[in-house]
Amino acid sequence: MKFIENGTVTSPKGFKAAGVSAGLKANGKKDLALVVSDNVANAAGVYTRNLVKGHSLQLTIKNMAGRELKAVAVNSGCANACAGRAGEEAAEIVCKKVAGILGTEKEKIAVGSTGVIGYVLPHEKITAGIERACKELSYDEDGGHNAEMAIMTTDTVPKEFAVSVDIGGKEVIVGGMAKGSGMIHPNMGTMISIVTTDAKVSKEVLDYALKKVTEVTFNRVSVDGDTSVCDMCLVMANGQAGNDEITSVDSEEAKLFTEALHKVCDSLARGLAKDGEGATKLLEVCVENAPTAEDAYKIALAVAKSPLCKTAFFGEDANWGRILTAAGYSGAQFDPLRVDIYIGDVKVCENGEALPFDEDAALAILKKNEIKVLIDMLDGTFNDKMWTCDFSYDYVKINGSYRT
Amino acid sequence: MKFIENGTVTSPKGFKAAGVSAGLKANGKKDLALVVSDNVANAAGVYTRNLVKGHSLQLTIKNMAGRELKAVAVNSGCANACAGRAGEEAAEIVCKKVAGILGTEKEKIAVGSTGVIGYVLPHEKITAGIERACKELSYDEDGGHNAEMAIMTTDTVPKEFAVSVDIGGKEVIVGGMAKGSGMIHPNMGTMISIVTTDAKVSKEVLDYALKKVTEVTFNRVSVDGDTSVCDMCLVMANGQAGNDEITSVDSEEAKLFTEALHKVCDSLARGLAKDGEGATKLLEVCVENAPTAEDAYKIALAVAKSPLCKTAFFGEDANWGRILTAAGYSGAQFDPLRVDIYIGDVKVCENGEALPFDEDAALAILKKNEIKVLIDMLDGTFNDKMWTCDFSYDYVKINGSYRT
Repeated sequence: MKFIENGTVTSPKGFKAAGVSAGLKANGKKDLALVVSDNVANAAGVYTRNLVKGHSLQLTIKNMAGRELKAVAVNSGCANACAGRAGEEAAEIVCKKVAGILGTEKEKIAVGSTGVIGYVLPHEKITAGIERACKELSYDEDGGHNAEMAIMTTDTVPKEFAVSVDIGGKEVIVGGMAKGSGMIHPNMGTMISIVTTDAKVSKEVLDYALKKVTEVTFNRVSVDGDTSVCDMCLVMANGQAGNDEITSVDSEEAKLFTEALHKVCDSLARGLAKDGEGATKLLEVCVENAPTAEDAYKIALAVAKSPLCKTAFFGEDANWGRILTAAGYSGAQFDPLRVDIYIGDVKVCENGEALPFDEDAALAILKKNEIKVLIDMLDGTFNDKMWTCDFSYDYVKINGSYRT
Repeated sequence: MKFIENGTVTSPKGFKAAGVSAGLKANGKKDLALVVSDNVANAAGVYTRNLVKGHSLQLTIKNMAGRELKAVAVNSGCANACAGRAGEEAAEIVCKKVAGILGTEKEKIAVGSTGVIGYVLPHEKITAGIERACKELSYDEDGGHNAEMAIMTTDTVPKEFAVSVDIGGKEVIVGGMAKGSGMIHPNMGTMISIVTTDAKVSKEVLDYALKKVTEVTFNRVSVDGDTSVCDMCLVMANGQAGNDEITSVDSEEAKLFTEALHKVCDSLARGLAKDGEGATKLLEVCVENAPTAEDAYKIALAVAKSPLCKTAFFGEDANWGRILTAAGYSGAQFDPLRVDIYIGDVKVCENGEALPFDEDAALAILKKNEIKVLIDMLDGTFNDKMWTCDFSYDYVKINGSYRT
């Protein structure tokens, strides 16, 4: 597998993209992205498990019944959620407009929205924006980068990634982009991500691979424990790489493709956590040797969600008692006298008990912008991992005044 | 029922208390509290449901097997948790020392600790502190107030409350004190509270009443979603009011007593939320007309825990979409198109849809330091309620540097 420098959604063959300012963001920044496949692509999607779903997302779920997409249009600056019949109509208008220009059926268009809840997508602005975006569609990397810029909200850095992999003698490329960075919590994606590939893959394999991969990537990220109402991850496979179609989930080719998809989603997921609202540090919470997979997950999740753990990391304080506390209320069953905790490579707790440790060495680790925490349960063979970030003043600042 | 001005744990007959500085807090503030009943009292307790439990709490649970207490000693400044055999011994030493001076069995002493995890209670300091506290025991309200001061950690105001109620022609008094104010989350009390009463109540009725009351008071408070390892609520009933012993949970007298206990715990619980770490506002999250009690609880809990909702209240932003979002991921089952939301008396969402509302009126409510949010599910008869607080810069500040 090879990393593609400056890789993005336009890295695979036959995908073009654009990002424009449709005037939805008050600051005039790009807010409308379009990703288009030359031919209708096989597609798969995973969606928020929030009971409340935005109008754009609801229409996408409907249009995805046939698991085929020609294009995805995503706007930032307005969630188009909880806005009643007018919100539903706005989503329909976007699909019809994009389909009309591209000359395809409206059911082949997916639409996504992110921003403040309770406002309808303004028809004129979005229609004019779509016309402009269609004119600016580009196959080169700038097209992809502009699309990524246009889906960002409080994100401070773009998240794009692409890899290539040899499948049956053909170079297959998988590229993706994603936006965070608040209301981030597993189930599902809890963000918007669009992944493209020129692999020739059956709908079944694509669906299987996406579900398998999101479970261990996007669903292992938590910024604040809030699961959004608009979020989705869509993958489009247009088959232009020329490989023999991958039709069996058990084949070597499916394995190679899934690995490439995993690499892209893993990188994007990590990027989401690192760029969580107000984040100064990326935290990797690893649980090892738990008695069951569920226990490992529960412990990693509780630590990754704990405001007390997250503020301690912001304060660069090796307060491991909070990590053990979070494990204790996670719902996992374990012996509190059989837990070791490491911050980086410094062991701070042994058998559930304080261990004298080198505070300077711990501080040196805590001052880094990527920190690994290991909770060793010493009682089994199951591991799990969550990506999260620290909890800073800026998280409060960003979210204390988001709407106004 | 009558409110007792400046009421505290020494308001009921036959209880004395003290609070001294034993040198556990670096700043020299009071850190050791003692509450003593003249006679051995019937007692009941509820404890943290965290799998990890501090050494002092573990010993208290053991000593409470007989459900009788002469005294409770609580220290702040050190959690005496995750400290191994030395931590167990330290808790034993406190019980023995208090029992020795008071001339009772060590099993009649409860002990509690709160502070940083991973450090052992220093023997000499605590022993000398107990001697001093025993000399300063006082029946007047200052004794109770000093005890409250001594159990506070990041609390900014004391939480004490007492009421009197007529039971069978006798005046019965219930008084209580509590400390918060971080690591506060239901299951159980998730804080330390000591309640005293001169009511004559059987152990069974006392246990029943305490469990019933804590479920709707202390277990309805969330500051940060972190359930601590040291927390407990103990009630001691020494029978000095001279009422006929209350022996049936179904009696009118049990009802009156439970109401008084509820009033005290409710006031303390509300005080915990209002004085949550960094809090500037008390939030009352009410869910009404839900299809099941569990749905009502899940929705109230999700909103009360949501960092996005809590930061929006800090920012005085009527961002109701976050409230509906939290309800949507709470796990409760409901129709998203049948939810009304009110901030104070301003209706901001009707049938799950944005409602034009008077932003000035909403802002006037959001500027207050006590705010009620009502989520009306329009689909049943079950109500629930959580107390919480907003999420401010100061929460991050306090918890970024707690240990160091």
